[in-house]
Amino acid sequence: MLSKNRIKYINSLKIKKYRQLSQAFIVEGAKSVIELLGSDFETEFVLATIDFQQKYSSILTRHIPKVETVSLEELQGLGSFQTNDSCIAVARAKKNEFISKRPGEYVIVLDDVRDPGNLGTIIRVADWYGIKNIICSPDTTDWYNPKVIAASKGSFTRVNAFYTPLDSYLSENARGEMVAGAFLGGESLYDFQFAKTGGYIVMGNESNGIGPLVEGLVTNRITIPRYGEAESLNVGIATAVILDNLRRSGI
Amino acid sequence: MLSKNRIKYINSLKIKKYRQLSQAFIVEGAKSVIELLGSDFETEFVLATIDFQQKYSSILTRHIPKVETVSLEELQGLGSFQTNDSCIAVARAKKNEFISKRPGEYVIVLDDVRDPGNLGTIIRVADWYGIKNIICSPDTTDWYNPKVIAASKGSFTRVNAFYTPLDSYLSENARGEMVAGAFLGGESLYDFQFAKTGGYIVMGNESNGIGPLVEGLVTNRITIPRYGEAESLNVGIATAVILDNLRRSGI
Repeated sequence: MLSKNRIKYINSLKIKKYRQLSQAFIVEGAKSVIELLGSDFETEFVLATIDFQQKYSSILTRHIPKVETVSLEELQGLGSFQTNDSCIAVARAKKNEFISKRPGEYVIVLDDVRDPGNLGTIIRVADWYGIKNIICSPDTTDWYNPKVIAASKGSFTRVNAFYTPLDSYLSENARGEMVAGAFLGGESLYDFQFAKTGGYIVMGNESNGIGPLVEGLVTNRITIPRYGEAESLNVGIATAVILDNLRRSGI
Repeated sequence: MLSKNRIKYINSLKIKKYRQLSQAFIVEGAKSVIELLGSDFETEFVLATIDFQQKYSSILTRHIPKVETVSLEELQGLGSFQTNDSCIAVARAKKNEFISKRPGEYVIVLDDVRDPGNLGTIIRVADWYGIKNIICSPDTTDWYNPKVIAASKGSFTRVNAFYTPLDSYLSENARGEMVAGAFLGGESLYDFQFAKTGGYIVMGNESNGIGPLVEGLVTNRITIPRYGEAESLNVGIATAVILDNLRRSGI
């Protein structure tokens, strides 16, 4: 039987302020929880149905003290998913630690990406294309928002975030490096040569694009060629297309 | 003052059954409604705030008899958007008319894409890459779902749909043509040569991929190369990356 305090705790973690106070976050659904348990995140506890525990007993036995059985009805009321018939977990957030780019590495930089679904998608896409690190402006949506975690489909366990003011980060760390920014009206992505020495790929806010402070630090303006009439592409889509072109070019 | 009947009518159009009975659908928000008014869709009526009418008076004057003023409060209760401070319109759905591929054209084929946000994204991406026609299996989510229309960001006015059983459509119409299907474990998209004579690009269901009936009609299995560890890409993202590679190859 789920305690009231536990329900209250889980509900509090839907709100950024309480996530930051508790330094914890919610992970929902079978796939994400399984990835969580196999990652270097510390899991506080898992609430799981009997069915889920039977199906994944080999994985869960390693975490027994942390697993509590809940009914389907109890589970439905928790979390932010409309349909979750398996489990929910609470994990410890990681510290916001400085990320330094390794030689040859490409790092994604997000300037105020506000939509949690978009951030989650970007994390998943980064993971697909082998990008390990994402630098986020302080106003980028919270990495541990349940919708970000859900949309990342488990990729949050493999991609690292560092939230920091981008202008000072880039001025101090990106000197002499390629800082490619996605703009409308820049150089065609198809002609663009990504530096073999690595660099930064900057994606902007959904409505306003890359802000003026960061724009001043961009060394190369790149654009995805358009063949039809849509005004723009979603920032998650644009990130995927740019990373695909990066990898396609052999870097 | 908005009539009760009109409120009831708009609410009914959130449900597929009533959309089909009325052959009408909802368009929400400034950008989408402006695109609607400039398109070949027939608009039944527009409910707009005074602010919106003043801002777009030059466009709206051509549609005066159809425009009714609503207050912000009235607007908030309508539609499915959380925040809509400008307008909502109702338009006539188009007939489900047969689409035949022109020589050299690439057509997208969707095998049971169920999520409205994904379909809307695919329409927007198709519009960006100059794809005009999408063939949808009967179980693909309804084109006129308000979430599809919203996610397409106005691109629903420029991309045509035809819902039909894919196996018979492809057997009858795609003979001798390239039918490229997105699978895990197919030929690398980077090595793949798209036919200059055009063809079909088949995208599958979010959970199950392309079904066996349609799979049997696929002539080429293509895969987006993976460099990291994410298990899969979202179908909207995958469509964008494939279309980007198509256009990049000069076709």
